[in-house]
This record gives sequence, C-alpha cells and structure tokens, in this order.
Amino acid sequence: MTRIILTAGTTDTALVDGISAAGAAPELMAHTPSADVEILEFGAPARSPVTPVSPSGCPTPAAVTRAVREVVGFDVTVVDAGLAKPTSSPTVDLGVQPGTDIREPAAVPGAAAIFDRAYGYGASLPAGESELVIGETIPGGTTTALGVLTALGEPTSVSSSLPENPVERKRRVVSEGLAASDLEPGDCAADPFAAIRSVGDPVQPTVAGVAAGALESGADVTLAGGTQMVAVAAVLRHAGVDAALEIATTSFVAAEQGQPLREACGELDCELTVTDPGFDRHGNEHVAMDRYRAGEAKEGVAMGGALSLVPDGEMATVRERFELVCSRLGIDADGEGVGDPSQMETGDEDGS
Amino acid sequence: MTRIILTAGTTDTALVDGISAAGAAPELMAHTPSADVEILEFGAPARSPVTPVSPSGCPTPAAVTRAVREVVGFDVTVVDAGLAKPTSSPTVDLGVQPGTDIREPAAVPGAAAIFDRAYGYGASLPAGESELVIGETIPGGTTTALGVLTALGEPTSVSSSLPENPVERKRRVVSEGLAASDLEPGDCAADPFAAIRSVGDPVQPTVAGVAAGALESGADVTLAGGTQMVAVAAVLRHAGVDAALEIATTSFVAAEQGQPLREACGELDCELTVTDPGFDRHGNEHVAMDRYRAGEAKEGVAMGGALSLVPDGEMATVRERFELVCSRLGIDADGEGVGDPSQMETGDEDGS
Repeated sequence: MTRIILTAGTTDTALVDGISAAGAAPELMAHTPSADVEILEFGAPARSPVTPVSPSGCPTPAAVTRAVREVVGFDVTVVDAGLAKPTSSPTVDLGVQPGTDIREPAAVPGAAAIFDRAYGYGASLPAGESELVIGETIPGGTTTALGVLTALGEPTSVSSSLPENPVERKRRVVSEGLAASDLEPGDCAADPFAAIRSVGDPVQPTVAGVAAGALESGADVTLAGGTQMVAVAAVLRHAGVDAALEIATTSFVAAEQGQPLREACGELDCELTVTDPGFDRHGNEHVAMDRYRAGEAKEGVAMGGALSLVPDGEMATVRERFELVCSRLGIDADGEGVGDPSQMETGDEDGS
Repeated sequence: MTRIILTAGTTDTALVDGISAAGAAPELMAHTPSADVEILEFGAPARSPVTPVSPSGCPTPAAVTRAVREVVGFDVTVVDAGLAKPTSSPTVDLGVQPGTDIREPAAVPGAAAIFDRAYGYGASLPAGESELVIGETIPGGTTTALGVLTALGEPTSVSSSLPENPVERKRRVVSEGLAASDLEPGDCAADPFAAIRSVGDPVQPTVAGVAAGALESGADVTLAGGTQMVAVAAVLRHAGVDAALEIATTSFVAAEQGQPLREACGELDCELTVTDPGFDRHGNEHVAMDRYRAGEAKEGVAMGGALSLVPDGEMATVRERFELVCSRLGIDADGEGVGDPSQMETGDEDGS
C-alpha cells in the first residue's frame, strides 16, 4: 500500500506582516499544522483548538487529503518537522525544532543535522514500504521556498494560498533574509544546507532527508506539493542526489504556475504529475469547492499527491466525500456562518 | 474499529541485577520497547538494532500482537511513555521521560503531571474512537507494578516473563525503593501518584491518564495486560475513577496468577477477560509456541487484549500468521540457530 509521509512544522517567517494568509490571528496559525495532521488522521481536530478554515469557507487542503484517504485508504505517517503546538496524532520524532524568521541570521540552525537524521529514518523504513509520497504542512512555506531557491541560484517562481500572490512582499523578505546571513543570490549553490540554514524552514531538510534515505534504500519517492517541493527537489539535486524523483501537485498550482513549474521540474529532472479534483464539474456547488476554484489554498498537506492516487472514475466519489468531511468540520455547502474572504483565520498551506 | 493504544517506555529499574529476563546485555534492553512498536507497526524492527527475541527462541509478545493485527486489522497508536531509544514508528509525544531506578528517591518525578497530560490526550480522542484497548511495553514493569501495589496497600502478586518468577528479588528491590522514599507499605493509599513517583514507572501514569480521559469522554476502555494493568487499575481506583474497567490478559498469565488475579480484579471492580491463543493445540510444534507453553514471556505489548479481539474460529489463522511473523523475524519453526534459554538476550515484557 502507498504510504503518505506528512512532514509538519512551523517557522516564525509565517508571522511576517502580510506574508501569510493566516493573518488575522497570528497565534492561531501555529496550530494549523497540528490541526492538519489530526484532520488527516482522525477526520477532525482533536487536541488542536482550531479548524484551519478561512472565514470565507475555504477549508485546509487537509480536508481534501482526508477525503481521498477515506476513499482510497492509504497509510499515513506524520513526521514532526518542527511543530509548535501539541497534536493528538502520533508523530515520528527526529528532534526537529520550529524554524526562526528568515530575517534572523539562522533560520534553521541544525539544517544539515536534521537532514542526516531524516535520512536515517528514510533509509530505515522496511522494504515493504516501497511507494512513498511525502507531503508537508507549514504556514509560510512558499516564502522559505523562495528563500532557498534564491540562495541556490534557481529560478524563483512560487505559488500562494491567496488568489493574489503577494510575491513582491515575499521577495523583500527573502532579500532581507539573505542580507542578514550575508549572502547573495546563488551563493549557496554548492551547499544547499547553508541555504536552508540561512533562509529556509525545518520541513525542507526533513523532506529532503527522508526522500534521500528512502531513495537510497530503493523506494519510489513522490514529493507531494507545488513550489515548496520544487525547492526540496532543488536541495536534493544540489546535494548530489540524482535518483528519479516525481513531483505531484494540484491543477490549482498548475493553473497559477504552469509554465515556470514545468520548466523547473524539467531543469531538476523531476517528473511532474498534475491532478484536477474536478471541483468545476457541473453540480459541485459546495462553497469549499468555490473557494478552491477562486484560487484559495491550492495545495498543501499532500493534496496533489493524494489526488494522484485516485483511480480513474473515482474522483466523483472523492468530491462527495470531501463534502462530508467539510460537513463534519462544520462547513455547510452554502457557506452559512462564514464571512469575509479577506479575513482568513488560518489555512495557509502551500501558499503565503 | 477498535484502536490499540500502545504505551511504550523504559525504567532503569530493569537494569537491577537479576530482576529482568533481559539480563545478558543490559544496553540492548533499552531498545526492546522501540523495537516492539516497530514490530507492531511494520512487522519487523526498523531503526531498532535488535529483535527482542530470547536465545531460546521465544519472541517478544509484539510478534503475537502483530499476528493478530494482520488477521483482525485493528488501528494502532503508539504513545511515547518514556522511550530511551529512537523508533521509526510515529509516537504521541506527551513529554514523558524514561523512569529512574525505584531505589532512587524519585522513580518518576513528574508522575502527576504525566497523568494530567495523558488525561488531556485521552479526553481529546475523537468521538468515533469509542473502543480503546491500552497496552504496554516496558522492561522491568512487573517490579514497578509490585512497587505501586505495595505502596497503595493492595495485594501484591505479580507475574513474570520467566518460567521461574524471581518474586523474592523483586520484593527486596521494592523494599529498598520504599525505604529510599521514606515510605511504608500502604502509605500512598490516598495519593496514588506519590506511589508512582516513588516506586513506579512512567508507563503507569500514562496508561492511567489516557484511560481516565477516555472514560470521561465516554469511551469503553480495556487495559491489555496482566499484573501491570492490575497496578494501573489500582491507581485509577485510588484516584477516584469509578467507571467500568476491563482487564484483558492471556491464559499464560492466568495459569500463573489465576486465583490472586481474579481476586484482585474483583476487589478493583474490573471485569477480567482471559484469552488462550491455543499454542498447545495438536500440530503447533513451532519453537516459539513451545516457549510460551513453557511459561516464557506470557504477556506484553497488548497481547491479551489483541487476542480478545479475535473472532470465534479465527485463532488457528492467528497461529499460522504468528509462525509467518516469526519467520520474518528470523525465528525458524525448529529453533535452529537459537541457544540456551537461560541466556535471554532481550524480551522482557509483562515479566522480569
């Protein structure tokens, strides 16, 4: 059976003003990854005090991934890649701490050591675990992706969970982050862990390490995500890992990032799989699908990778199940009780 | 679906000379719980360098519980109740540290705080999680069970993973432990967490807390184990928890502890379920079953609770699957390559 390994972490970079869709209440954002893993594991938050849902009615991609899981039945392993809040879900402990604001000198002080431990974990997975899909949930993750890509000297096009991508703001933060580490763009091309240490996040060395270790032991590895996983793939290539890699993302990321995304995957020798959940099919009037169609959320919590596991002809069942998951999370089809889309409470995934 | 919550921890009490079946190599014993959870999760050790199997060919009860899982298909959640070594299995982090030798003044310094956090976790489990079976793996656990029962003033009959129960040795260690905490038997009757703090282990407040929290939220709770779970039930009763409780153990524990076990369960108002895996049925000549018949291991890693989930008529399938699990773990049916039963390498579960 396919196993999805969900790496879940946090970085203070998400708290930079205006950088994250989870802006209204910064102290809630730290709960998003913990709540996401509970939704994937149990179908609803448990210890987490929040459901990562925007007031506009756009639920976290965890709800989509959970819906796929209820239809397709994959295994899940959650790796603690720097959680800031407790979660009821069991997590693999690799000693990873939350990340610091990239405008500080060291964003992920132990980046190389995290990679090494994650590599050991990935290499230790039993031989039966041969199909791994590795996803992420970390608010602020596209800004740190931009940071790492810039430090590596790779093309820098990143996605957002917002319909209007605040990309100029992200570039300013990355510039400040590089300056704080006394770096110019491209300076870390020969040392990808220096890129993460200076302007990355703790999820990046965790995903890269698990992937490299699992590849070494012969597993097939899919990186489930959009531009954040492009950054991880770039780290792997710059670290000399040349095994076959696949990136699986959603049609929502591809709609925004299509050409640059395909080019980046080509440059990094990664196969790209794009899956469309069909939220624009006739008859799908649920407010949550409206929000995804409008460009909110787009990706995260292994959503694209999970969707790629859905057999032909089963996507309608996934959409029905997604409505059920939303309903359990308190999101009605007509969006009753939800408010202004500009005031997102939480829900930053691949975006921001 | 039933969920087995496996609490896995360690205590330096297991290192007391002669107290534990895992005597030959004390530094390996600390790996036993980490390896047990990997066997239950994956079918074989992953990061753990040892398979908890005695040189006589008696595999850890984790192999039996895994066999039941492969037949019956229950969910598993592992709670870190003081692991000393890394494990590839995801674990719920409640901040529990390994326990100290009970002959030190404080065996589990934060016992009451561990109970509180475990209670919060148990109470947070989603409503769908209504059938919980809570098991344990902690080498040295029957000695700490004896410690807590003594401190509470309860009858003190405990089991062992050895055919010859070193019970007098355990009593001496408990006496020394009570003296080091300036306690007499029965002194902690009104404060069960003081009993654990002084002469218990970190698994005890974890199991008690998860059980109490889950009971409070309306779940059915079964404590899966033998005399170690009698000690936990005693803690719960002394803490004023009066909800219905069940203890599920194996016929091997019942064969050794029958009358005192039934009486203790009666006193504590716990329903007792005893399940016989039928290792003495004609045709079961596997060396691992021989060892269990001879009184080794007996219980641990939720073995009795798992066996209680096997539907009528399916036990023969479980026995066949157990042989397969053993074979994957490198234990042949005829015991080839295994040595002297007096030289157990690891494998202490309910016993020691």
